[in-house]
Amino acid sequence: MFPDRAFFYRLADAAKAETLPRFRTGLDVVNKQELGFDPVTEGDRAAEAAIRRLIVDHFPDDGILGEEHDDIGLDRDHIWVIDPIDGTRAFISGVPVWGTLIGLQDKGRSVMGLMDQPFTGERYFADGTSSWYAGPDGERQIHTRDCGTLSNAIMFTTSPHMFVGDDINRYRVIEDRVRLFRYGIDCYAYALLAAGHIDLVIETGLKPYDVGALIPIVEQAGGIFTNWEGGRPEAGGRVIAAGSAAVHREALDLLAG
Amino acid sequence: MFPDRAFFYRLADAAKAETLPRFRTGLDVVNKQELGFDPVTEGDRAAEAAIRRLIVDHFPDDGILGEEHDDIGLDRDHIWVIDPIDGTRAFISGVPVWGTLIGLQDKGRSVMGLMDQPFTGERYFADGTSSWYAGPDGERQIHTRDCGTLSNAIMFTTSPHMFVGDDINRYRVIEDRVRLFRYGIDCYAYALLAAGHIDLVIETGLKPYDVGALIPIVEQAGGIFTNWEGGRPEAGGRVIAAGSAAVHREALDLLAG
Repeated sequence: MFPDRAFFYRLADAAKAETLPRFRTGLDVVNKQELGFDPVTEGDRAAEAAIRRLIVDHFPDDGILGEEHDDIGLDRDHIWVIDPIDGTRAFISGVPVWGTLIGLQDKGRSVMGLMDQPFTGERYFADGTSSWYAGPDGERQIHTRDCGTLSNAIMFTTSPHMFVGDDINRYRVIEDRVRLFRYGIDCYAYALLAAGHIDLVIETGLKPYDVGALIPIVEQAGGIFTNWEGGRPEAGGRVIAAGSAAVHREALDLLAG
Repeated sequence: MFPDRAFFYRLADAAKAETLPRFRTGLDVVNKQELGFDPVTEGDRAAEAAIRRLIVDHFPDDGILGEEHDDIGLDRDHIWVIDPIDGTRAFISGVPVWGTLIGLQDKGRSVMGLMDQPFTGERYFADGTSSWYAGPDGERQIHTRDCGTLSNAIMFTTSPHMFVGDDINRYRVIEDRVRLFRYGIDCYAYALLAAGHIDLVIETGLKPYDVGALIPIVEQAGGIFTNWEGGRPEAGGRVIAAGSAAVHREALDLLAG
């Protein structure tokens, strides 16, 4: 049995009740060190616990893979993949684009997913077939766009500092070819790609819970999401998401060196 | 005569009516080139025109310095300094942190300013004495924080690619010392600094309309905002904003090389 959108929204609402009140709580660095109080860690753990309680109540046979607590039943068909606060550095800094990621895998493949943006009130959701946006400006189905070639592409990556060893050189080759590149928005970049605003996201060092919710949002909007070898991206690591097969192929060939 | 907050809000409302409906309008790059249609340029020009109409009607003796249209009366005591869409690359990419900047100078010094974030519904305002936040989570006076030393600081810059020549080396010295650095949010970084969420912003290549509204928001929240030589920052160029005098001094000494 698969969950419906209402259940994903319920999970996101439960997480939001733990994260948003801790956002911009304004304790400075020195106070935090003195008090041993860390709003982002507290919010992260409490939000994931809230999500897990609802899953265990309603889908007790499903497995759970989360950032903050122990894994449950990773040999089961259905596994929930959870990152309660993606973009913890943004959260710490008061930047409003951190998100909550809730994905569902069926036999190892990401099939449903929700990215919630608690501060902006936006949700990006993949229902198993299609991808949807809901936000202050309404609700609509979303689709990736095809910008034709890499030289027309807008690309995002969270930071060039994430690339280690020779990977930075391979990444820079792409950066030199695209029309525009930007840094710094974590999971939000994949949602913008799914909604047809940008064309390419290239990252590395990701965990399964960083991508679990985002893979179906990109794929069910018409995009391509793989690792740098062109294989399935569920394990994370080095990943590439593109709005069209042509741009994906062009970038992948350059990353292969 | 100085304007009140209601007038600044009226200017921001007029600008928002031109910018927000053009945000994420979804025309892809190829269409844009074929149709000669550019939502961000249209929004930029229309928003600035709307702001100018209100200023000319209500403060006909004031000068105006804007990004998109000709300057008016730059020899007058009061000059409005306008950037209708700061963060055009964010706007183009669908990222919701672009802003509208409206500042007022009195005899060359920035004394009032508003940063409006149309999508998130946040406003940061300096009334001549104090700085204020208004947003979905309420309204409050804001203050910078003192993180003590550079090694405790969270720093933002829009992109390391903005630094040219030896400036990138001087900037990297700071990046190596801070606790956390992040890229990519344009004017929003100064607002986060004013609200005590981050500690340092270092940038270069800025225009007067990039900083006119932000200087009083930072200063009236208790922060320090200068150029890299420690002088007044109204002309833009290479600027540094810090939450406290101590952190400002430490960073400025390193930038001086």
